[in-house]
Amino acid sequence: MKQINVGIIGFGTVGSGTAEILIYNREKISDRVGTDINVKRIADLDLKTDRGILLEPGILIHDVWKIINDPEIDIVVELIGGTEKAKEYILGAIKKGKHVVTANKALLAKHGSEIYQAAEENGVSLAFEASVGGGIPVIRALREGLAANNIKTIMGILNGTSNYILTRMAQDGLPYDKAVQEAIAMGYAEDPPDLDVDGTDAAHKLAILISVAFGAPVSFESIYREGIDRLTPEDIRFADEFGYCLKLLAVARDVGGMVEARVHPAMLSKDHIMANVNDVYNAVYIEGDFVGPNLYYGLGAGKSPAGSAVVSDIIALARQIRNNVKILIPPLGHARYKKGKISIQPIDRLNSAYYFRFSAIDKPGVLSKIAGILGDNRISISSVIQKERKIGGFVPIVMLTHEASESDVINALKLIDQLDVLTAKTLMIRVEG
Amino acid sequence: MKQINVGIIGFGTVGSGTAEILIYNREKISDRVGTDINVKRIADLDLKTDRGILLEPGILIHDVWKIINDPEIDIVVELIGGTEKAKEYILGAIKKGKHVVTANKALLAKHGSEIYQAAEENGVSLAFEASVGGGIPVIRALREGLAANNIKTIMGILNGTSNYILTRMAQDGLPYDKAVQEAIAMGYAEDPPDLDVDGTDAAHKLAILISVAFGAPVSFESIYREGIDRLTPEDIRFADEFGYCLKLLAVARDVGGMVEARVHPAMLSKDHIMANVNDVYNAVYIEGDFVGPNLYYGLGAGKSPAGSAVVSDIIALARQIRNNVKILIPPLGHARYKKGKISIQPIDRLNSAYYFRFSAIDKPGVLSKIAGILGDNRISISSVIQKERKIGGFVPIVMLTHEASESDVINALKLIDQLDVLTAKTLMIRVEG
Repeated sequence: MKQINVGIIGFGTVGSGTAEILIYNREKISDRVGTDINVKRIADLDLKTDRGILLEPGILIHDVWKIINDPEIDIVVELIGGTEKAKEYILGAIKKGKHVVTANKALLAKHGSEIYQAAEENGVSLAFEASVGGGIPVIRALREGLAANNIKTIMGILNGTSNYILTRMAQDGLPYDKAVQEAIAMGYAEDPPDLDVDGTDAAHKLAILISVAFGAPVSFESIYREGIDRLTPEDIRFADEFGYCLKLLAVARDVGGMVEARVHPAMLSKDHIMANVNDVYNAVYIEGDFVGPNLYYGLGAGKSPAGSAVVSDIIALARQIRNNVKILIPPLGHARYKKGKISIQPIDRLNSAYYFRFSAIDKPGVLSKIAGILGDNRISISSVIQKERKIGGFVPIVMLTHEASESDVINALKLIDQLDVLTAKTLMIRVEG
Repeated sequence: MKQINVGIIGFGTVGSGTAEILIYNREKISDRVGTDINVKRIADLDLKTDRGILLEPGILIHDVWKIINDPEIDIVVELIGGTEKAKEYILGAIKKGKHVVTANKALLAKHGSEIYQAAEENGVSLAFEASVGGGIPVIRALREGLAANNIKTIMGILNGTSNYILTRMAQDGLPYDKAVQEAIAMGYAEDPPDLDVDGTDAAHKLAILISVAFGAPVSFESIYREGIDRLTPEDIRFADEFGYCLKLLAVARDVGGMVEARVHPAMLSKDHIMANVNDVYNAVYIEGDFVGPNLYYGLGAGKSPAGSAVVSDIIALARQIRNNVKILIPPLGHARYKKGKISIQPIDRLNSAYYFRFSAIDKPGVLSKIAGILGDNRISISSVIQKERKIGGFVPIVMLTHEASESDVINALKLIDQLDVLTAKTLMIRVEG
């Protein structure tokens, strides 16, 4: 069979990782596929920077449409990021009957529906393994490996930057700001790192996982999100005393007709399989009704891991093309779609255990006032730590609760934070298991 | 499209799990595939036992050949285990042009080559996700998700029974025999549990993983194996003091032209991602040249997890059948096979760090004699623990070494065990990282 031609749009980090793998592992890949895969064109605005990859003249070009309109190109790979141009190119390629591979999580989280529909209408495949969890084949797990199951729970450490920051805070006792600076210096975070640390990036990825798990798009805006910027090394130490570690978790749960979907810092038992997911690693924990708990773990970002995921998609599409298949598996893994979007349960209907850190003046009766308000709101306390007095008469009281309702917690904290013995807003962290 | 008909051979644990999922999740599965999947026949010697699954009359039959010869059956699922009859049935089904799904690790480890070849010659697909790691889609990860990579390392906890035994020994301080009895009582181990605890089962699975990772069959007999029966709770406590936990590991490593392949107890750092893989869970750690380290984790056996894997294979084949594809991915994930079998490196060419537990009489000069022999054999010691004297003048001396060569270790231990101050054969455990 003739070779399969690939055109790559975007020669940045993931683009150069993809090209590198297709070139360096060309023989291995061709042994696997049975057909040679050829990088015919790469389009980028920057034709000059040396990416350390030797390309024959004419491969690196400026004009994206030369890729999209090239009848010899079978697979178009979009790796420029952003949501405007990327969408235009992807829809353009789909209309030209090209299979499309993308790593663009923000685009899929926001405009997924339109793109999935366009792909199906035009009889082409859309693959996006690299959009979630870098090199971890978790989209494939949901579309194929766990396809026998109704998915019950997804719990992910989906943002490598914030996981790196929390790891430095936990292992070296760094305050949040210092850990952020270190992450920026190491090249793991952008400056400022807003979308990583405020939960937006993890929520993009969670939106994609939910769509694939439950077979319909989800409205990204309805996913609750909360960042890691209020956490302190003290919270991590208190968590440790209670037997927990602290992670930024993305959680989705089938609650019967609706799906819980939220991104926030969470406490995780130290003997949970995700407790050792540190540094820039990502992990996705999935429970299916028959398979039980599964975990997928690997590097969540970076040139080579993301490139590995992009190339795995290219290989899957090449195997299809060899067999004259247009759509083997639809984008969301379901041949029969649910109508409309998945309903997300509002966060105040959550039931969870909670960690509270109260910043209170050290006076007699403070703990009893706080405990009284909690009790009035049906929140029952499972452990309390009150440590030695701090400078300035300020003392942290930390507490774990039994399972309580989020709306009760919201009401109770509103009342507690109005007490004049409280010196700062109470920090609340959900306990996830 | 017409429905796809499945025939299941074997209505034991995995067979009933498979049937249960196909029946209970029929609608979900058909949403995913786009076609209804129908359990047309199940063959078993035992037509009477109640498996808790309601089957219409005529589905459960005695005669396997009624499945193999039924022109309406598209996919034959072999779940009887054993290597004689199972092989006959699988080859029979392949010759009839049926796609085949099997969970039979012993069969594939021993007669894989013949079966893979028959499937390719007859233009049918062979799938065996459930043969390794129960519900964990790790075969799929190697054939698809990591297909962009040259696989460098595989490290697996592949036997749930021995992992359960080691977990009980570690968490409750049980001696080996008691932990085995408990595993038998819980239904996690057969009585006697030989193939589980002596490394044979894990070696079967490792043979399959190696074949899929490197694209050629492997001679099962050449995989080194060592069981867990000599380990004691004291070894686990010493390991803990050194910062390690103890696992039965299956390890394969690309050493350039050859592959290291071995199953034995091993020490693993407590902060390794596999350190929290406890009880009957399995995990496979895989390093690829571009993706870096990946981990796949889940329940390694049991009706529902194994059923989930079998049904994922049925779904994959159904998606192929819908698209008129005979072989999308060859059994070992490589369209172009290597000639012959993979060469396994002999165990004595291994380099590793080691743990030794010497059982010595408590006399002056014993440690110096032992250390002298180690030094003469180029083995350098990194830590020693010598604890208080035990009853009967017998004292354990435990030691960790720096990286050394296995052949030097074999020679040194032979000399040490001949010393008259040694009261029992020295226990050696490899340190894996």
